[in-house]
Amino acid sequence: METVAIEIPEPTEMLNSITPRHLLDLNDWSLADVETLFETSDVMAQVMGRTIKKVPALQGFTIGTLFFENSTRTRISFERAARAQSADVVSFASGNSSMSKGESLKDTLRTIDAMQADLYVVRHQVAGVPHQLTQWTQASIVNAGDGRRAHPTQALLDAYTFKTRYKDFQGFPGMKLAIVGDIAHSRVARSNIALWTKLGARIALCGPATLVPPEFAQLPGVTRHHRLEEALEEASAVMALRLQHERMTSGLMPSITEYASRYQITEDALRLAHPNALVFHPGPINRDVEISGGLADSERSVIEAQVANGVPIRMAVLYTLLVGKK
Amino acid sequence: METVAIEIPEPTEMLNSITPRHLLDLNDWSLADVETLFETSDVMAQVMGRTIKKVPALQGFTIGTLFFENSTRTRISFERAARAQSADVVSFASGNSSMSKGESLKDTLRTIDAMQADLYVVRHQVAGVPHQLTQWTQASIVNAGDGRRAHPTQALLDAYTFKTRYKDFQGFPGMKLAIVGDIAHSRVARSNIALWTKLGARIALCGPATLVPPEFAQLPGVTRHHRLEEALEEASAVMALRLQHERMTSGLMPSITEYASRYQITEDALRLAHPNALVFHPGPINRDVEISGGLADSERSVIEAQVANGVPIRMAVLYTLLVGKK
Amino acid sequence: METVAIEIPEPTEMLNSITPRHLLDLNDWSLADVETLFETSDVMAQVMGRTIKKVPALQGFTIGTLFFENSTRTRISFERAARAQSADVVSFASGNSSMSKGESLKDTLRTIDAMQADLYVVRHQVAGVPHQLTQWTQASIVNAGDGRRAHPTQALLDAYTFKTRYKDFQGFPGMKLAIVGDIAHSRVARSNIALWTKLGARIALCGPATLVPPEFAQLPGVTRHHRLEEALEEASAVMALRLQHERMTSGLMPSITEYASRYQITEDALRLAHPNALVFHPGPINRDVEISGGLADSERSVIEAQVANGVPIRMAVLYTLLVGKK
Repeated sequence: METVAIEIPEPTEMLNSITPRHLLDLNDWSLADVETLFETSDVMAQVMGRTIKKVPALQGFTIGTLFFENSTRTRISFERAARAQSADVVSFASGNSSMSKGESLKDTLRTIDAMQADLYVVRHQVAGVPHQLTQWTQASIVNAGDGRRAHPTQALLDAYTFKTRYKDFQGFPGMKLAIVGDIAHSRVARSNIALWTKLGARIALCGPATLVPPEFAQLPGVTRHHRLEEALEEASAVMALRLQHERMTSGLMPSITEYASRYQITEDALRLAHPNALVFHPGPINRDVEISGGLADSERSVIEAQVANGVPIRMAVLYTLLVGKK
Repeated sequence: METVAIEIPEPTEMLNSITPRHLLDLNDWSLADVETLFETSDVMAQVMGRTIKKVPALQGFTIGTLFFENSTRTRISFERAARAQSADVVSFASGNSSMSKGESLKDTLRTIDAMQADLYVVRHQVAGVPHQLTQWTQASIVNAGDGRRAHPTQALLDAYTFKTRYKDFQGFPGMKLAIVGDIAHSRVARSNIALWTKLGARIALCGPATLVPPEFAQLPGVTRHHRLEEALEEASAVMALRLQHERMTSGLMPSITEYASRYQITEDALRLAHPNALVFHPGPINRDVEISGGLADSERSVIEAQVANGVPIRMAVLYTLLVGKK
Repeated sequence: METVAIEIPEPTEMLNSITPRHLLDLNDWSLADVETLFETSDVMAQVMGRTIKKVPALQGFTIGTLFFENSTRTRISFERAARAQSADVVSFASGNSSMSKGESLKDTLRTIDAMQADLYVVRHQVAGVPHQLTQWTQASIVNAGDGRRAHPTQALLDAYTFKTRYKDFQGFPGMKLAIVGDIAHSRVARSNIALWTKLGARIALCGPATLVPPEFAQLPGVTRHHRLEEALEEASAVMALRLQHERMTSGLMPSITEYASRYQITEDALRLAHPNALVFHPGPINRDVEISGGLADSERSVIEAQVANGVPIRMAVLYTLLVGKK
């Protein structure tokens, strides 16, 4: 047996001096912010590699999860990241809330906020809600997905997974990320475009014309393709996006069969990419639609590593916003 | 870094000697009980004012929340109050329960109680259920709302908010509380009437005749009005009650428009009250129905302070019932 | 005040050397495993008998509850068992999950597992799912009920309740357990048959022919009856099974009235059993269907003791699987 004293960080001037205060969109974070976050994530990943996966870093802090749009896996990942640092968690799901009694978003947030959490993790179907909430609370806000706009922790865990898993990783410049599928409706795509270009990688977007907005190709370092072979050429990372069921019958794309025949990422298709290329998917996957089941289960796939890295990345985000960058 | 040892109160003779053992109804608590509770709440409010909002006061105690009627905000407030004192929380919501399999309330409570929580926070649509539960368990019971009967922690946080926010507060005697709206169906009104009269304040009830039961005006210190001007005259506190949607079309009241024109609390109407008067609302509000949006957002409104004070009040209630009155 | 240091067990070689690693089915546990578990439960029952019902035994471990089939009482019992040992709990209920988005069970488990809980408590409507999950994770699995197959912690708490409550208990050999009702569809019956025969008791199964599979009577020590008088003769323990509502109109049994007249356990019927006989029911009960209300509330009934013992039994299961058998 070993006796462990709980250490609580001294509150001296902490909360107001921290920069950045929120994680809303990766456009607001500098390259240095991201690189420091990845270093903090390395420490957190070590914690998660121990038998006792718990540190007292956020003892006494309370984190509220406000999921106006449902997502069990993202919510659980944030809760795990909070509890692994000994923070308390208060969960608020809008289905149960008085918003269904006609209360405004502002009144709901102010009510919840009066209970004084230190940080809110917010998911909402409307783009911009997390930004708006920063005007109504002194707490930090982490965007866990807003409309089609941004999902910054997903992009951070994707890039961090690439950084820690790619064979002989030497940095993002020179690397090429191919994102394949419904780019138009994807916050995961938007956040990854913002992050990987900031990190210096090139990006190839690929899908049916209706699902890849032309304006994205005007961003520096980003190209647009409709043939998978072009997009995958020399790619070091290939990201298949989930095809939403509601999109499959929308008329924006050909039939599922035709979509799969043209854009499904398979072991065959992957031969066009760099020999070390890794395959990503934000989950949950539609096997044999946007990705073949065989490839999803293969060694090239880092799908489980993405989920696993979600915990140390989110631990680092919570720690950075609440206690500072060290 | 600072090392903090966790202190656990010695269990000596604690649990059985505590008075009061439950919070069912404010009629059961003496004036001295309430005043001591407010003093304990002052200490708890200090805790909630720190960066690290957590004390080990209830370490090792388990609090069960039994919400047979849904209320996210009240449940979250109690959970926050429990966790801020390091208690464990077990949540039981009836929607998921075996009561839907036809089990009786008694059998449900006995089953839950066999898991040995120390205190249950109970909300139920039927008046008297919290009282009944005290017959079936050794644990303490806190009423979080039963039918139209009582909602004692709401009244306590209302009076505590008045006490701590009213300019030059000198005590409740001489103060006048106006409660406006659907008194007949409101447990918030009933508990505030019981508490504020106990504290020595006068109360003016106001609303359409169908919504203000005449018998309430027979209580000492309570008057009944149908014109807002009369009720608000010289009032130090004005409480607008939420107009339930189901009531709006019930025939018990005029149209919403007419109701609002006669009973909505506005900045204009508030000129009839004392110049220092504060405005209360138990939430969630129907903006521009029972209260004007402008007034709700103004400095006269203590709506957010009510929610904020819910946490130290409920911390004090839990502490008082579990560990004693100091 | 007393200062308590938190002790964390040293992780030395713990996790991989533990036997047994899972609790899937009582057939996999030896008699010695069960007897050691009962000894550990005795210690845990002492903890639950204190004012402060909490020990740091599982501090830093995370337990995931995966209830694909809903059961508030079983889930709460496991959560209480986890938190009483200072473990963290992550709850996953399938209703909210991406399985409703068409994800496979394997992908769901792998995703959840990437968050690295140390042990999963699993309930699923399909027999064998908990066994399957052991192939997909390094974590320990506790079966909290799979189809009609097994519910081992229920059987353990039943036998433990008999052991600790039966007057002048001298061991299971020589004892007779009568199980009455819908044996065919009951995982509780199957697990109790497996456990009590392992412990050396005789078992009499009783119910309408359609609800008592003949093959069960081929097990050593097990007999099959259709008349209650035969089954109860000299029984030391009588277990009434819950009659599922969907079964009552299935044609597999006579009318509820006729069922009750032939198989309801009443104070009268119990006179046929041993004078010390105790009455069990896994809950929730249908009063005056499979058991009379009077008997359920009498001193012969150990229904509440069963629920109460669920906590120390599950504490012992979690502790045994995570930290070892001591």
